[in-house]
Amino acid sequence: MNKNNKILLGTDTVSGIHPKILSAIALASKEKTLPYGNDIFTIECKKNISKIFEKEDIEILPMMSGTASNSLALSSFLRSYGSVLCHIESHINKDEGGAPEFFSCGGKLLTISNSSGRINAEDLNKKIQEVNFKGKQYSQISGISITQLAENGTAYSQKEIKDISNICKKNNLYLHMDGARFSNALVCQSPLSPAQMTWKVGVDCLSLGATKNGAMAAEVIIFFNKDLAIEAKKLVKQTGHVIAKTRFISSQLNAWFQDGLWLILAEKANNTAKYLSDRLSEFKEFKLVYPTQANEVFFKISNKTYEDMIKLNIISNLWGMENENKLIVRFVTSFETEIFEIDELIKRIKSFCSKN
Amino acid sequence: MNKNNKILLGTDTVSGIHPKILSAIALASKEKTLPYGNDIFTIECKKNISKIFEKEDIEILPMMSGTASNSLALSSFLRSYGSVLCHIESHINKDEGGAPEFFSCGGKLLTISNSSGRINAEDLNKKIQEVNFKGKQYSQISGISITQLAENGTAYSQKEIKDISNICKKNNLYLHMDGARFSNALVCQSPLSPAQMTWKVGVDCLSLGATKNGAMAAEVIIFFNKDLAIEAKKLVKQTGHVIAKTRFISSQLNAWFQDGLWLILAEKANNTAKYLSDRLSEFKEFKLVYPTQANEVFFKISNKTYEDMIKLNIISNLWGMENENKLIVRFVTSFETEIFEIDELIKRIKSFCSKN
Amino acid sequence: MNKNNKILLGTDTVSGIHPKILSAIALASKEKTLPYGNDIFTIECKKNISKIFEKEDIEILPMMSGTASNSLALSSFLRSYGSVLCHIESHINKDEGGAPEFFSCGGKLLTISNSSGRINAEDLNKKIQEVNFKGKQYSQISGISITQLAENGTAYSQKEIKDISNICKKNNLYLHMDGARFSNALVCQSPLSPAQMTWKVGVDCLSLGATKNGAMAAEVIIFFNKDLAIEAKKLVKQTGHVIAKTRFISSQLNAWFQDGLWLILAEKANNTAKYLSDRLSEFKEFKLVYPTQANEVFFKISNKTYEDMIKLNIISNLWGMENENKLIVRFVTSFETEIFEIDELIKRIKSFCSKN
Amino acid sequence: MNKNNKILLGTDTVSGIHPKILSAIALASKEKTLPYGNDIFTIECKKNISKIFEKEDIEILPMMSGTASNSLALSSFLRSYGSVLCHIESHINKDEGGAPEFFSCGGKLLTISNSSGRINAEDLNKKIQEVNFKGKQYSQISGISITQLAENGTAYSQKEIKDISNICKKNNLYLHMDGARFSNALVCQSPLSPAQMTWKVGVDCLSLGATKNGAMAAEVIIFFNKDLAIEAKKLVKQTGHVIAKTRFISSQLNAWFQDGLWLILAEKANNTAKYLSDRLSEFKEFKLVYPTQANEVFFKISNKTYEDMIKLNIISNLWGMENENKLIVRFVTSFETEIFEIDELIKRIKSFCSKN
Repeated sequence: MNKNNKILLGTDTVSGIHPKILSAIALASKEKTLPYGNDIFTIECKKNISKIFEKEDIEILPMMSGTASNSLALSSFLRSYGSVLCHIESHINKDEGGAPEFFSCGGKLLTISNSSGRINAEDLNKKIQEVNFKGKQYSQISGISITQLAENGTAYSQKEIKDISNICKKNNLYLHMDGARFSNALVCQSPLSPAQMTWKVGVDCLSLGATKNGAMAAEVIIFFNKDLAIEAKKLVKQTGHVIAKTRFISSQLNAWFQDGLWLILAEKANNTAKYLSDRLSEFKEFKLVYPTQANEVFFKISNKTYEDMIKLNIISNLWGMENENKLIVRFVTSFETEIFEIDELIKRIKSFCSKN
Repeated sequence: MNKNNKILLGTDTVSGIHPKILSAIALASKEKTLPYGNDIFTIECKKNISKIFEKEDIEILPMMSGTASNSLALSSFLRSYGSVLCHIESHINKDEGGAPEFFSCGGKLLTISNSSGRINAEDLNKKIQEVNFKGKQYSQISGISITQLAENGTAYSQKEIKDISNICKKNNLYLHMDGARFSNALVCQSPLSPAQMTWKVGVDCLSLGATKNGAMAAEVIIFFNKDLAIEAKKLVKQTGHVIAKTRFISSQLNAWFQDGLWLILAEKANNTAKYLSDRLSEFKEFKLVYPTQANEVFFKISNKTYEDMIKLNIISNLWGMENENKLIVRFVTSFETEIFEIDELIKRIKSFCSKN
Repeated sequence: MNKNNKILLGTDTVSGIHPKILSAIALASKEKTLPYGNDIFTIECKKNISKIFEKEDIEILPMMSGTASNSLALSSFLRSYGSVLCHIESHINKDEGGAPEFFSCGGKLLTISNSSGRINAEDLNKKIQEVNFKGKQYSQISGISITQLAENGTAYSQKEIKDISNICKKNNLYLHMDGARFSNALVCQSPLSPAQMTWKVGVDCLSLGATKNGAMAAEVIIFFNKDLAIEAKKLVKQTGHVIAKTRFISSQLNAWFQDGLWLILAEKANNTAKYLSDRLSEFKEFKLVYPTQANEVFFKISNKTYEDMIKLNIISNLWGMENENKLIVRFVTSFETEIFEIDELIKRIKSFCSKN
Repeated sequence: MNKNNKILLGTDTVSGIHPKILSAIALASKEKTLPYGNDIFTIECKKNISKIFEKEDIEILPMMSGTASNSLALSSFLRSYGSVLCHIESHINKDEGGAPEFFSCGGKLLTISNSSGRINAEDLNKKIQEVNFKGKQYSQISGISITQLAENGTAYSQKEIKDISNICKKNNLYLHMDGARFSNALVCQSPLSPAQMTWKVGVDCLSLGATKNGAMAAEVIIFFNKDLAIEAKKLVKQTGHVIAKTRFISSQLNAWFQDGLWLILAEKANNTAKYLSDRLSEFKEFKLVYPTQANEVFFKISNKTYEDMIKLNIISNLWGMENENKLIVRFVTSFETEIFEIDELIKRIKSFCSKN
């Protein structure tokens, strides 16, 4: 690797398409099929998901955008006069330009703030009590949304999800999971199965993302609770998210699931992140902020360190700013990130940082 | 007053119509006029408001609902992809069933939480920095909304409003004031003028309410910044808030402003509230929560005290619940509340409470 | 009547408030009651409507705006991805600034065009077949809306409504009736009962208007099909159409129904319209366009005649323009229109028109 | 070609990806680039479009869905209280599940009905006059949308577009072109240039589609009027139509434009359609409905003929139904349709149809 090359580690969406997925697209192109989801690739996709998630009775919606995948899933139970509970740092609240509110024509996200980055039973109960107290004048709660992997790179344990879904059951709420980095969260909790991390602990629908982990543009909403699919299927056309040649999403997903490719890629990214996390922690200028469980690594650094990295073409993501001299940066590895890139990164860091 | 009579003090909307306002409605009924705001009463109303607020260059929209008055005013600058900063306890956030979000097709309320019940410059700057940091993925901020009287019964000082509007100017934001109890806030800061409390310190539009203070159903959006009226005037019909016989709103407002009736009624309510606040504070079971500045009084009481009040037909508003034995109740006086009612209330309280 | 006085006959909303309704408002003001519909006047109102419409099992929503009354009623079954069939000339399509589309976040009005001014079974079947043919890509039909009195002043017969509701049943559609001038349509088909003209022939919900016929601002949505009320009750707050002192709408309606006042006033308006229709038809410059069944009268006149009327302070409503010299004007009488006004009008017309 | 093979000619979206476009995707995958449109492929795409359309001063939005491309383009000037004029048969009115209405939160499509399948100056002027006549109560017109190729397979001439844009200028309206089959319309009017068919005759924005003509999923909104892009760029994220790896749309478009590939493919499809049209017209069972100008061919046939075709695995699109025995079917050729397929089709038709 040339020492002047940019090392892009700000997000996993800088990655390309895995060769097996590209081949699948090419193969799907050879056949003429009916458009709008009435093709054999989409039928096969549903079967694959049924098998992997160990559930016959599901509905799926293949999508091309993560924002749409989350917003449509939420709209399956969120109406304009309702609200959804989520963490204040969640992607749906901070990074989708108000899409959940738009898809639901004015539905409200009620946010929960805490330092763990994951919502928990106690916070939820308090918020629910507060809303119920106000009664009808408040936007009534319809469901809860959690992000797996959470925004701070940590994973909800099965027990944590179970506790949240118990609150859902008690309060008649739906449970949505934003799974943009679901595969990364899954492999770091091995041998937990996809089913054990979702519907077996009460998740009603999952926005599963393949784009950050090998696909070109492939997301799929999986409705474990099929009732929810009815509304979503009516809205998906009206929001412009039915693409004509649906087979090209489904075939990406099929290749992604084939022979556990999705898990292999996620594991590689996680391992590289762990390597990056360990090596960078050796420098006293880098203070690890959250435990590195999957493919996201957060460090607290000084402004000067941040600028030095940029000078040396190391591109991280400026995540937060505690004060003018305390920044939080995020590194995200993908299936394409190689150990030699991290070694090169460490080599460059060494030129201006000192070991603990 | 009969000792079995209910004393309704939970809200000022239990009150009726002031006789002078009722007479004005009757008088307006005698003339045939064009509908939909093309009548002399509405023209006169605008003139009255111009005079009272010392500004020629305004636009007004007479309305019948406070929720609509706030939501339409906000929609004059809030689009679906935008957001408005407000206090977490504000009426627009907690008590309008998601109307601001609906009117703006998905606009977002970004809330600020603090114990004073009023947003301040420091909190605002922090939130604005946070949103700007995230950039385009976040719902960009379009404006700020403050409530005068604030939800906790305290009034923003002229200085506080000025500080907020300076932030607005600096960040290119609009400033809206929810004035459901504007008159109560105004008279408690005498000799501050309506102009001094609004456009002279940077308020762009005011949702002024007469309903809680003498009218049957009369609210008016006053656009000090006339540009904002363009959008609102287009939306008002589509949201169903143009009533056919507009003159019956305008004539209510005209009578309300006539000879300072609005201020006289507000002052009476404020004085009665002060009397209630002082008398109730004498009992050790009643701990005043916020300073009583206008017509709202908040006390912390035990669950037992609350139940005793209900038994004696004293109806307050259950405002909050610190824990199972620490309640916060709200008393609101109106132009119709008389001192003898408060005396009767105190008499009943005495039967189960003891003086400090 | 002074010969220079304006004769305002363009619409019935130029009228004021009937004295009995004004008295009812004054009376309701004397009592303190809970706001937001939790008052005895609203409970009584529901009972009155139950009795008059001979149906126990209903829900009602008192409103202040006709546009909102129609749009909320439609939103009880119209979702963003759905559509409603209506006449192209209907008020909901042409005169509410897009409110039905807004309330439903993008629901579609599919219009039927014909010269009768009323939709009929044949037109409906053709349109339904066309939409079903296109299938899922088209906005699926949720219901049908008819206007009684129709926009052209004619009334749907019971048979016509029955035929339409049969189509609804066959196609699983809801039937809404815009009854802004329901009372005028009812009395002209005497002895048809309110029940016979609505739910007994399949109407699911009725937007009943009192404003044009004696009230200040009073409309009520009557849900004969109670299931529909669930959605509407959730939306009514969010659209800003819950006014604080609901009793002042309910008390208007109560007085309006009392001793058949609503029918007496409608009959008077209808009779005056018939008199106007007969007298004006005597002039060869005035060609009656539609049969005068209730309180609306339509004439085809020349541009010159129209201008002559204006010069003599006769204000009608310019309804349509066949070409530059063929105008259609509408006269609408109200409960306040007196025979002597019509006589004065005829006197003025005589000054420039000649008898047949 | 095997005689049992299905011949899929109902739509051009049954086609796959052109090899050159697939290669471009593969090539773009080799580089790490920033997501969300901040990549060199998207910059290049804009340059390509500028060159081809001979206009520097444009904005573009690469999209993956034709429905979204149309709806976002319309939303750049259509607000909830506005309306857009279009043909009743247009895709935006009949085939997008209400997406334009949803994107604009309730904007209205005002439809024009005629037998030519294309709107014209006379129809437009009549409709505009009608809406203006009604005034503010009607949803005011913001723009006009035309489809090139029109839904019935015919192309607007440059003169026809010019006439429409003159009406736009006169009435202060925007002009949108749905160009899902723009390339097919362009080559059939050779040597008309892209610029001559769009902005040079007053088109403000074009929804240009590549998906039906060689791409996997690639559409692009071209704003010749850059002001319109401001609003659209704010809405695109909120509607979920910013995909993470934008480069994979841009690179498709780049390959599509490269060396005139888009025109070569369109011309091939058009020629094949002409061949199909000519050959099928020889049978007396097939009556051509519209002139075959591009790649769509419409025939009127009997129910029996339609069923016979299905039996022989000829799949056309059932377009309309005049009566139970008069059907209209559509054949659409794509860049992948080969003459030998048409020959095979004709062979099968011969088995049950007779020549003129």
